[in-house]
Amino acid sequence: MSAVVITSGGMDSTTAVYWAKHFFENIECMSFDYGQRHVKELSCAAEIAKDLGVEHNIVDLTGVNKLIAVSALTNPTIEVPEGHYAEETMKATVVPNRNAMMLNIGIARAVATGAEAVVVGVHAGDHAVYPDCRPEFIELQERTAQVANEGFIHPEFQLCAPFMFMTKAQIAGLGNELEVPWHKTWTCYKGGEIHCGRCSTCVERLEAFHLAGVAETTEYEDTLYWREAIAAFDG
Amino acid sequence: MSAVVITSGGMDSTTAVYWAKHFFENIECMSFDYGQRHVKELSCAAEIAKDLGVEHNIVDLTGVNKLIAVSALTNPTIEVPEGHYAEETMKATVVPNRNAMMLNIGIARAVATGAEAVVVGVHAGDHAVYPDCRPEFIELQERTAQVANEGFIHPEFQLCAPFMFMTKAQIAGLGNELEVPWHKTWTCYKGGEIHCGRCSTCVERLEAFHLAGVAETTEYEDTLYWREAIAAFDG
Repeated sequence: MSAVVITSGGMDSTTAVYWAKHFFENIECMSFDYGQRHVKELSCAAEIAKDLGVEHNIVDLTGVNKLIAVSALTNPTIEVPEGHYAEETMKATVVPNRNAMMLNIGIARAVATGAEAVVVGVHAGDHAVYPDCRPEFIELQERTAQVANEGFIHPEFQLCAPFMFMTKAQIAGLGNELEVPWHKTWTCYKGGEIHCGRCSTCVERLEAFHLAGVAETTEYEDTLYWREAIAAFDG
Repeated sequence: MSAVVITSGGMDSTTAVYWAKHFFENIECMSFDYGQRHVKELSCAAEIAKDLGVEHNIVDLTGVNKLIAVSALTNPTIEVPEGHYAEETMKATVVPNRNAMMLNIGIARAVATGAEAVVVGVHAGDHAVYPDCRPEFIELQERTAQVANEGFIHPEFQLCAPFMFMTKAQIAGLGNELEVPWHKTWTCYKGGEIHCGRCSTCVERLEAFHLAGVAETTEYEDTLYWREAIAAFDG
């Protein structure tokens, strides 16, 4: 049993890597350079794979980015929004068809190597903003992959999204049990030297660790703002 | 109404470009360098787009090819099979998940530009060998794209495969009416200076022109073999 794990170096996909390492006999990791500001996540993903002794490939999609640069994540002229991760403004961070592009390259690799799964770390907290993180998408994408590669893909191929119905706090709890090295993961969308603590994903990360009661050693520029952002959204 | 047309410079996708030029107000073309032997098709695709005065982008997927090079089309150590295009040996020309990868990048572009369609030239003759040319795949891929990009994709987005139930001979007939410059299109899988006339796609091309009664001026190394290959298969 082998699997290709799509990883960004973030806390969800790194937990997915650790989860897959337990679940499958062999895994390999795949990351994407799609022109994201936070390209630092790629070196984080590489280091995590190296620590685990698993193959890691980075696929260069920067040529594609030039054609689709309408997101704050990939276009330097659009500002990364601060605040709560479920707000309307976060739509500025949506990259057109991103998960489908990445998953389909992972699926191609799985067909080529005979792997029976592609693993992806999407979770319940992503559903509101990112349509390509919802269960409807993952189910359709799995079926599409089976049909597109019938006779070539592993007959029991699965597009595996183990955290689909988990919150980010639950992932933090699970990752802690699996001994994920949180300080080696990268979340921040702004792509500075250390995590900003203010962008939507930093807020989400800090809240998740708080809710899960996880103590971790990542450095943040601003360690207080996240509570304010959550309170403003809830209020 | 605008569309992104996926084109390889071959006779089907070039006919799709001419068809789309009639059907949509604006079109743009997209081709892929996936490490194919017959990379010559890309300059053919570029010339055809230039003649029509439409934008043409070539997306570099050569980095992906290194990870999935199990096809005779992309791995120089695997021989391109000769003979009939529907034979079992033609499976050596299947590239893992190829159409899904290409379509999903085209879909990303359509989301970014607000285009309401991605057009692809798959046809009935492809169904036997290439699972990602079948109507089941195209239908699932269209639905997957709509779900993956809900709220961002054109609300009437279509994955448009106008030749899905046409034979290659019917495409040759239609292309002739649309005045497709056949001598500028490239089909041969072997990637030599001129079309070999012996590989599966050359055989298919020559048969299609013959059946459609189309006279064209492409040069072939071997202009007789195709009849033999067809006869051997039918017999």
